[in-house]
Amino acid sequence: MRGALMYGPGDVRVEDRSDPTIVEPTDAIIRLAGTCICGSDLWPYRGVDSFDWPTPMGHEYAGIVQEVGSEVGTIEPGRFVVGSFFASDNTCEICKAGYQSSCVRREPVGAEGAQAELLRVPLADGTLVGTPDPPADDLIPSLLAASDVLGTGWFAAVAAEAGPGKTVAVVGDGAVGLLAVLAANHLGAERIIIMSRHPDRQKLALEFGASEIVEERGDDGVARIEDLTDGLGAHSVVEAVGTQGSMLQAIRSTRPGGHVGYVGVLHEVALPGRELFFSHVHLHGGPAPVRRFLPELIELICDRTIDPGKVFDLELPLERAAEGYEAMDARRAMKVLLTV
Amino acid sequence: MRGALMYGPGDVRVEDRSDPTIVEPTDAIIRLAGTCICGSDLWPYRGVDSFDWPTPMGHEYAGIVQEVGSEVGTIEPGRFVVGSFFASDNTCEICKAGYQSSCVRREPVGAEGAQAELLRVPLADGTLVGTPDPPADDLIPSLLAASDVLGTGWFAAVAAEAGPGKTVAVVGDGAVGLLAVLAANHLGAERIIIMSRHPDRQKLALEFGASEIVEERGDDGVARIEDLTDGLGAHSVVEAVGTQGSMLQAIRSTRPGGHVGYVGVLHEVALPGRELFFSHVHLHGGPAPVRRFLPELIELICDRTIDPGKVFDLELPLERAAEGYEAMDARRAMKVLLTV
Repeated sequence: MRGALMYGPGDVRVEDRSDPTIVEPTDAIIRLAGTCICGSDLWPYRGVDSFDWPTPMGHEYAGIVQEVGSEVGTIEPGRFVVGSFFASDNTCEICKAGYQSSCVRREPVGAEGAQAELLRVPLADGTLVGTPDPPADDLIPSLLAASDVLGTGWFAAVAAEAGPGKTVAVVGDGAVGLLAVLAANHLGAERIIIMSRHPDRQKLALEFGASEIVEERGDDGVARIEDLTDGLGAHSVVEAVGTQGSMLQAIRSTRPGGHVGYVGVLHEVALPGRELFFSHVHLHGGPAPVRRFLPELIELICDRTIDPGKVFDLELPLERAAEGYEAMDARRAMKVLLTV
Repeated sequence: MRGALMYGPGDVRVEDRSDPTIVEPTDAIIRLAGTCICGSDLWPYRGVDSFDWPTPMGHEYAGIVQEVGSEVGTIEPGRFVVGSFFASDNTCEICKAGYQSSCVRREPVGAEGAQAELLRVPLADGTLVGTPDPPADDLIPSLLAASDVLGTGWFAAVAAEAGPGKTVAVVGDGAVGLLAVLAANHLGAERIIIMSRHPDRQKLALEFGASEIVEERGDDGVARIEDLTDGLGAHSVVEAVGTQGSMLQAIRSTRPGGHVGYVGVLHEVALPGRELFFSHVHLHGGPAPVRRFLPELIELICDRTIDPGKVFDLELPLERAAEGYEAMDARRAMKVLLTV
């Protein structure tokens, strides 16, 4: 099969790789209907994260089950499925509490690289969720979004306790932040403020349900949120970037007793204890337990209630993955879909 | 009147001070039935926090209203009342959400010092809660505890979402930690693990409802909590110390998706972002909104359902406050009650 490998920062190549095979009896092999480049793939691309090179890339996937191991009981070949970046048994106490991305048996699905034609998914019964029918082609982008960015934005909005009567602010206008807007809107938030200075992203945020735009950042952004909320701060703030500055912006934009939902993978962040203490906020986040939300998200997509696939603004064949990385790195593209 | 002043680290003196007077029409003057020395009073005593010396000390109080300002409507002279260390209007949006210690009009009550015979309390209507009847003398210690350490321990247990079916671990065996045990027990927690190596505190924790004791600290303590919870960690962890080590101990003792309730005033703490992210915990805490809980706590004390006054293991007249500080600093006393 063909698959993308990163050879080092800025160096992505699509090459012949061996087809994955069933290793454990709980595995499934999927033929991908498409895959994506994630904002988090840019950390190693920019040299912030380092791996043993070359490393297979990609952790977002949806497609048709091709083969299953002998112990897989709920997923059969021919079924269209969506999964998340952590495989989970979905039966342990942590999974049952809704934290499948911290499952006691969790395995990263991305280890073998989802930017490829075929993918081995461990713990298939606990990880994969099937669509009710084979999906129409135009639903594929949204189902791919469900695999990570939608599920992550959804978790952020839930962690921030977005809901009726709440003013929600979103820090970060990437795909995850924009889909947190969509989630907050679906959850019934009264007002949704997107913090963004990019016209195209502002436009999509408004389509997804944002009611206000704040272009200022940092302390100026915090001051604008205060202005918009009688000096109190937002009830719910989503953090979808992962830096020291964005975390502080999120905490400072939240009223005492409010909730910060953070899903940007924290890089070089050290939260000052005294400020956190007196902020009185609730802080919750981490790697999104996408599996918790997948059944609902798939239903909402398949009945066309939501259209998260709009976050893809560049589509390329897998062979041209390198161009996709370049476009996202240069912010010429928000989110790239790779057709397989 | 007589009142305690700190002249610098290790130097507490009781002196003649002017009687407080009504400054704002929303003030009340209280004649104290007793006051306390708080663990947090030891920060300046040990030179960790610094003030303009001399500074009046104490922020825990209960007593009889002596005089009220012209705008005070719900509290009348002669009433026995309990209040908290932050005065609050109890009507703003933040108060209504239960975060009175972040009230938009909040004022520290401790500024004029509650280790004294008389105390001016701002925003009396929003701050003070009366007892249904004049309390029996033996209830005074428990009502004083409600003013801070009980209310703070209660908030910690609530923030940690202690309740039925939950395993709760408590980091810190001072008065607040022990009263968090009492709160978790009252809230219906299934198991309560106190992390303590002091036999007298262990004994009181067991009286308050602890079911298990862990003597190990730091990573060894975390490993013991894991052993006791099938390797998962506790559902709910109370942090009642406020150092980097105790916060990390609390976070690491919590299972993914679990809740940390932290009330130790954080000193020189910088939470590592990456560890926090992958811990998957909920983090909530800060200065306890004691006012939220006071009506319920006063009722539980006055009907003798709970006896939080047991945390006082040394009682001295106000004149001997300096001895009380010495005893707490040297850990010869857990919590000192000063009779007035």
